[in-house]
Amino acid sequence: MPDLQHVLSASRRNFVIVAHRARSDGEIYLNDLCGASGRWDGVSRSITSSLFLSHDMRRDTSVHILLLGPADPPKLLSVNGEKVKYLNPDERASSALMKKCLKEPLGKGPGASISPSPGITLTRVGLDGFLDSISGPLILLDEDGDQPGELFRTLSHEERFYFLLSDDMDLTEEEKDLIKNKEHCKIKLGPRVLHSQMAVSIAHFLLDIGLDPEIS
Amino acid sequence: MPDLQHVLSASRRNFVIVAHRARSDGEIYLNDLCGASGRWDGVSRSITSSLFLSHDMRRDTSVHILLLGPADPPKLLSVNGEKVKYLNPDERASSALMKKCLKEPLGKGPGASISPSPGITLTRVGLDGFLDSISGPLILLDEDGDQPGELFRTLSHEERFYFLLSDDMDLTEEEKDLIKNKEHCKIKLGPRVLHSQMAVSIAHFLLDIGLDPEIS
Repeated sequence: MPDLQHVLSASRRNFVIVAHRARSDGEIYLNDLCGASGRWDGVSRSITSSLFLSHDMRRDTSVHILLLGPADPPKLLSVNGEKVKYLNPDERASSALMKKCLKEPLGKGPGASISPSPGITLTRVGLDGFLDSISGPLILLDEDGDQPGELFRTLSHEERFYFLLSDDMDLTEEEKDLIKNKEHCKIKLGPRVLHSQMAVSIAHFLLDIGLDPEIS
Repeated sequence: MPDLQHVLSASRRNFVIVAHRARSDGEIYLNDLCGASGRWDGVSRSITSSLFLSHDMRRDTSVHILLLGPADPPKLLSVNGEKVKYLNPDERASSALMKKCLKEPLGKGPGASISPSPGITLTRVGLDGFLDSISGPLILLDEDGDQPGELFRTLSHEERFYFLLSDDMDLTEEEKDLIKNKEHCKIKLGPRVLHSQMAVSIAHFLLDIGLDPEIS
């Protein structure tokens, strides 16, 4: 089984999205990202939120999409903000690039891995294997979580960390159990329940300011 | 000249996006939102950030897009989170709804206004007329702005307020002068330069928590 470290330890900031319905086989319909593609619109917005700045990229960040939809799950799609090329912020172009990558054959064996485009890696791994392979605090973003308290200040001392979010569906009980064994903490970002890409933008902001006393 | 108050005072939270290139005449190409449509992808993401929660809408918020692109500018497209129907969060569906609305004829006289779909209003007004018509603090979000300091706490006492952002282009000198006469303050949200939809998500978050001391 190949080592996943080259993907999972490439960046300091990591966002992990559990995409329950998102097509894993490249059968992404660019004119119907929401429906037949399994909410690839939301996946694409999360990629944009994770990696884009105005006229620049977040080079310290990777986003990992755990694709659980048909017809070839599980697959982990990792995009590295330092190395990725040809990525645009709009849903159609971003999904088109990922569609092309997902059309490349990936071995069925656990840990099989290919890099079909610069900065993009596909790995044959599910949530359990992913959780076993990361090194660094895992923070679950969840509406039932606690206030972040000192979290964002303490993360400023960490070499590497992972924020995990579900897509528009709740985590299953089985997924929750897997995560609980590994999770550093479970927090919510404000009182409202948000789309994944909004939570990602807010987490980046709180990391950027380190909850700067001038702002708080 | 009709009164704009029904549009500009409908919501407590207001986001105003100056969209310099976005097509104002409904010639929006759903397969090319970025290019020929004049960055309608970004406009759509800003609408989504302003109005959507997970499985709900922000009913206290309106977003106003000042369309300055060809071929029928200026037009103010206002979407009211309390009243809007048929709006989806993805770029293609959101742009398709707005395209349909923009195809409806709007009078050339200043202040001409139509409501082509529930919760959506088109008004013939430019930045100067818009600024003359608002009542409540105007906050410019800009990379050269100050730290927000106490702003989000003080806004919790205001009946109504407006956050103004430019799209991916800088405000022109003429626009800056118009805004300066009206602006309450100019702030930045963190040290990085962000896409409009990210800044909107962060502003909502800071309003939601009122910079809750438990978080800061």
